[in-house]
Amino acid sequence: MINESNYPVLSKVNVPADFRDFSISELKQLCTDVRQYLIDVVSLVGGHFGGGLGAVELTVAMHKVFNTPEDRIIWDTGHQAYPHKILTGRKDLLPTIRQLNGISGFLKRNESEYDVFGAGHASTSVSAALGIAEANKYNETDRKVIAVIGDGAMTGGMAYEAMNNAGMLHPNLIVVLNDNNMSIAENVWQFSNYFTSLITSRDYNKFKGYVWEITGKMDNFGDRLRRAVGRVEGGLKSIVTPGMLFEALGFRYFGPINGHNLHQLIKVFEAAKTLTGPILIHTNTIKGKGYSPAEKNSPKFHGITPFDKVTGVVYKKTGAPPSYTSIFGETLTEIVKKDRKVVGITAAMPEGTGLNILHRECPNNFYDVGIAEEHAVTFAAGLATQGITPVVAIYSTFLQRAIDQIVHDIAIQKLHVVFAIDRAGLVGADGPTHHGVLDLTYLRMVPGMVIMAPKDENELRNMLFTAIELKDRPVAIRYPRGNALGVPLSEKFEQYEIGKAEELEEGTDVAILAVGSMVNNAQKALPILQNDEISAKLVNMRFVKPLDTDLLDKIAITHKRIVTIEENSIQGGFGSAVADYFVDKLYKNDILRIALPDKFVEHGTQAELHKLLEMDAEGIAARIKKFVHADDSVEKVVI
Amino acid sequence: MINESNYPVLSKVNVPADFRDFSISELKQLCTDVRQYLIDVVSLVGGHFGGGLGAVELTVAMHKVFNTPEDRIIWDTGHQAYPHKILTGRKDLLPTIRQLNGISGFLKRNESEYDVFGAGHASTSVSAALGIAEANKYNETDRKVIAVIGDGAMTGGMAYEAMNNAGMLHPNLIVVLNDNNMSIAENVWQFSNYFTSLITSRDYNKFKGYVWEITGKMDNFGDRLRRAVGRVEGGLKSIVTPGMLFEALGFRYFGPINGHNLHQLIKVFEAAKTLTGPILIHTNTIKGKGYSPAEKNSPKFHGITPFDKVTGVVYKKTGAPPSYTSIFGETLTEIVKKDRKVVGITAAMPEGTGLNILHRECPNNFYDVGIAEEHAVTFAAGLATQGITPVVAIYSTFLQRAIDQIVHDIAIQKLHVVFAIDRAGLVGADGPTHHGVLDLTYLRMVPGMVIMAPKDENELRNMLFTAIELKDRPVAIRYPRGNALGVPLSEKFEQYEIGKAEELEEGTDVAILAVGSMVNNAQKALPILQNDEISAKLVNMRFVKPLDTDLLDKIAITHKRIVTIEENSIQGGFGSAVADYFVDKLYKNDILRIALPDKFVEHGTQAELHKLLEMDAEGIAARIKKFVHADDSVEKVVI
Repeated sequence: MINESNYPVLSKVNVPADFRDFSISELKQLCTDVRQYLIDVVSLVGGHFGGGLGAVELTVAMHKVFNTPEDRIIWDTGHQAYPHKILTGRKDLLPTIRQLNGISGFLKRNESEYDVFGAGHASTSVSAALGIAEANKYNETDRKVIAVIGDGAMTGGMAYEAMNNAGMLHPNLIVVLNDNNMSIAENVWQFSNYFTSLITSRDYNKFKGYVWEITGKMDNFGDRLRRAVGRVEGGLKSIVTPGMLFEALGFRYFGPINGHNLHQLIKVFEAAKTLTGPILIHTNTIKGKGYSPAEKNSPKFHGITPFDKVTGVVYKKTGAPPSYTSIFGETLTEIVKKDRKVVGITAAMPEGTGLNILHRECPNNFYDVGIAEEHAVTFAAGLATQGITPVVAIYSTFLQRAIDQIVHDIAIQKLHVVFAIDRAGLVGADGPTHHGVLDLTYLRMVPGMVIMAPKDENELRNMLFTAIELKDRPVAIRYPRGNALGVPLSEKFEQYEIGKAEELEEGTDVAILAVGSMVNNAQKALPILQNDEISAKLVNMRFVKPLDTDLLDKIAITHKRIVTIEENSIQGGFGSAVADYFVDKLYKNDILRIALPDKFVEHGTQAELHKLLEMDAEGIAARIKKFVHADDSVEKVVI
Repeated sequence: MINESNYPVLSKVNVPADFRDFSISELKQLCTDVRQYLIDVVSLVGGHFGGGLGAVELTVAMHKVFNTPEDRIIWDTGHQAYPHKILTGRKDLLPTIRQLNGISGFLKRNESEYDVFGAGHASTSVSAALGIAEANKYNETDRKVIAVIGDGAMTGGMAYEAMNNAGMLHPNLIVVLNDNNMSIAENVWQFSNYFTSLITSRDYNKFKGYVWEITGKMDNFGDRLRRAVGRVEGGLKSIVTPGMLFEALGFRYFGPINGHNLHQLIKVFEAAKTLTGPILIHTNTIKGKGYSPAEKNSPKFHGITPFDKVTGVVYKKTGAPPSYTSIFGETLTEIVKKDRKVVGITAAMPEGTGLNILHRECPNNFYDVGIAEEHAVTFAAGLATQGITPVVAIYSTFLQRAIDQIVHDIAIQKLHVVFAIDRAGLVGADGPTHHGVLDLTYLRMVPGMVIMAPKDENELRNMLFTAIELKDRPVAIRYPRGNALGVPLSEKFEQYEIGKAEELEEGTDVAILAVGSMVNNAQKALPILQNDEISAKLVNMRFVKPLDTDLLDKIAITHKRIVTIEENSIQGGFGSAVADYFVDKLYKNDILRIALPDKFVEHGTQAELHKLLEMDAEGIAARIKKFVHADDSVEKVVI
């Protein structure tokens, strides 16, 4: 597979020690090989792509200069770390990336000793690296610690908290800013603009020009002035350059450096190795570097499904239903066009959330606040106090960043903010850092929160309409990653009664209460159950909070056996809500709670994972059969 | 009470409109009155103090210049907002502050139209203000929007996210930085250091000196050079001053301004009113200004119980048991002294968490990272990867800021980080923004997390020891605000078996399963129940996760009636865990879940709130009596 003819140098390299003695020209060929291998593999199997292509030289240079794994490199997020994986013993496994039982698409500590710190969420690397650098003190070692962070991740508040703290603690720590001026979507980093304007500052250059012009013409005081200027210029320069901010934070600044110039990178890393205190190395890279379709359309190639490597055209599935994401984006746009006091807010994910549609059609009602979930939520709270209706679109897993803001800034004040929570449930290839399996739990604990989950895309439309109309409370709608069901969309919106479920099928042996994505799976389980002569009632709950307690009271009487199904952790979600209700009412029905286990689920396709966890139609049917056929539960109470 | 003789000007003022036409000398007297009134009242009833004293002139100047409540002032946290409360219709209510049914110690929207945005947690004001400023666009108004934020709150990541976003959106927005160079504890803001060093920069001043000295001696080119220097100096100055950072973020910078000079404050606010775009006004204030004991000992007077206003001496309760906080601080210090690979981390609360004791005795093993809970947790994760044991001490309510970091950076990687969660349960006077009533829920959803709660201070010691010894998992210990029980402390630590409860009392009618603070209340309820001939078994659960399922299996057989008691929300906490377990096992016992209601609880003393919510011994006994005496639960299942 990786042989000498297609990858002349990479074929000889397994781990960094193999190339530390290479010449610059060999290292350059290694970069070429790694880049080609990345293109060859990702075009076949898909994955995060642009970030890795941009970080090839950076990766080679760091592993050459630093004595990994003894020295510690901490990557922010994992998007950029594919070359790192290739060069640290996992090149042969790259074709398995993000697949069931294959290697992870992100850094993962139990995958390799070179993966110092796992990361799927952004902006964590400097905090982790600072901890590792401080640990040197207690472990009495002086291993080098290097964090690599993108400009996008630098917009995240916790990166700033960490930089501020690093400047204060002042350990030996190298932060490499991999600045592709891009982040995932467009650049939303205010500092970048300022840096650019400073470098091209006319005032500063004009001033310098004057001094040299004038002093050149003087004989008496000229030399003295020239010397004075020269003496100050070093200090002044470091102030009036991009380094300014980082020096303010207590870092020694180097850069900006061409992140594709291997020679220069090696030189600066060698220099940094000899210095003490916090150091920031600012490198400029091009996302997608070396693969022209990716350089030209960076958001498309950030993470991608298999594509034709010559043309860059993605292999499309034809006739697939639209995604929940696009239905959401279109519906919100439709609503905003009628009501200009509704706005959409994303935290650096316009494409991922579908808000790019709103951005395109109603740019004045669209906000991209950067990788800044905490700010996004409280910003929405501010808007809501003035009668504006903000729709905050954040993935389930990333909304974990803003739970306090939901409680403290929104719920306590009963503000009307709508949360559109995409990627709720198992997300597939991105794995445990990205599965959105806790939101029903962390939202259910918030007093006054309304929580809905649609069974299909038409319900998603109606729920968004219902949520925006509600006005007096925060509302969350959670829906899964991927294609919707392909049901017809009603032209007119239906406003749902809050806390009212939909009874879909009647049956007598068992009542199945399903939430969101699991309604469809449960529906598919019905014929399997019927084959086994089990007659099941099916309810689409629609609301996890408030629960339809009228219906629960009714079912408590009509059905001895009840099943709850949700794509959320078994701890504290919908099944818990039903269990709580039945226990509090002293109802004695038998309840089977089908939910995700209380453990981290690995990566794989959504279908594979559902099957594995018995959450697909067959698995659900099998579990219900066992439940129904079990002997009537023995009354355990003796007294 | 407030009459002309003791407060000559304040007695005539109810709302800002009353003093907008005052002369400067009248306004100065108003400041004197407000300050005196603050001292008079807080010395009697306690409350947050130093911040308010420092913000008197700021408050008067803002309400004079801006047309509140039509213009919007957003205060960060509420510590500094007592003068604002006094001047916006609530002076007569100040003596009720933080008391049951009295006014809140923080901003509160439903208390006054002048309280634009509620805030008990730090760093939210700029986000909220930015939302309010953007809302102007949709509401077609140009009301002024002003955020007031302390230097401490500026260390919070979300403040940075908001500043960055404000620079990008560029609305009309005024941010007032109330810089008392202090925050709650010592200053941990790296930028402050940099500002100070820049202003006193020898290089810059030396350079300017050279230029003027030399050009003064020249006749030909001197004037031209002087002009050149002059022309650039404006631009250069704005770079080489504290404004630098804020200008980098897209703000126009004014300051630093003496925050106690009323005349200057009014002038700069008047000027700012006429400008567009984001503006930052940097004011220097003195925490505790005008009350010398508070100026001298700022942390002590940040928030305080009643004191002698002449001497500043706090009225002490004698003979009270030590606080959980101090027991924690002392125990951790004791452990660190024996094992230097254990460290303590606080987010700007060394006194509040008891880590000041560790700081004093083992400064090398102590970290104060600033108001930066997210960073604190991931920093701990970094330390843990290198075999260090970090003990992160954060209040329950503030740990809500770092739930994603607990899940993503610690639990997924099974890192051994210990969370010492103080202020768990109802905290009393600080009210709904500070009650720590969700942690059992948000921690229980985290796979692999161990959750303990001590029944007394000796258990707290043993639990801390147990947690530090555990090594292979994250562990949380949650304990209440206030005095412990006064039990004797064992010299030798006991290591508890993970997931094993302690059976305290035997009884037959009902089994009470209690957690943490509620063990003591339940114990006190036992004699009341005995008077009613109810024989109760009492279990101190010790662990909320993992549950002692062996014991639950046993009790399911021995006791028909089971009661769970916890000081956490009824949604998803310990009672839910027990309900889930019984439902999953098809046990049919009757369970009464005693917990905090699914709503925000207002402020009051802890004792008052416990009584109100029937969580004190009497309330618990009454609820259990009703439960036990109810007719045997009717089996509701018909089929």
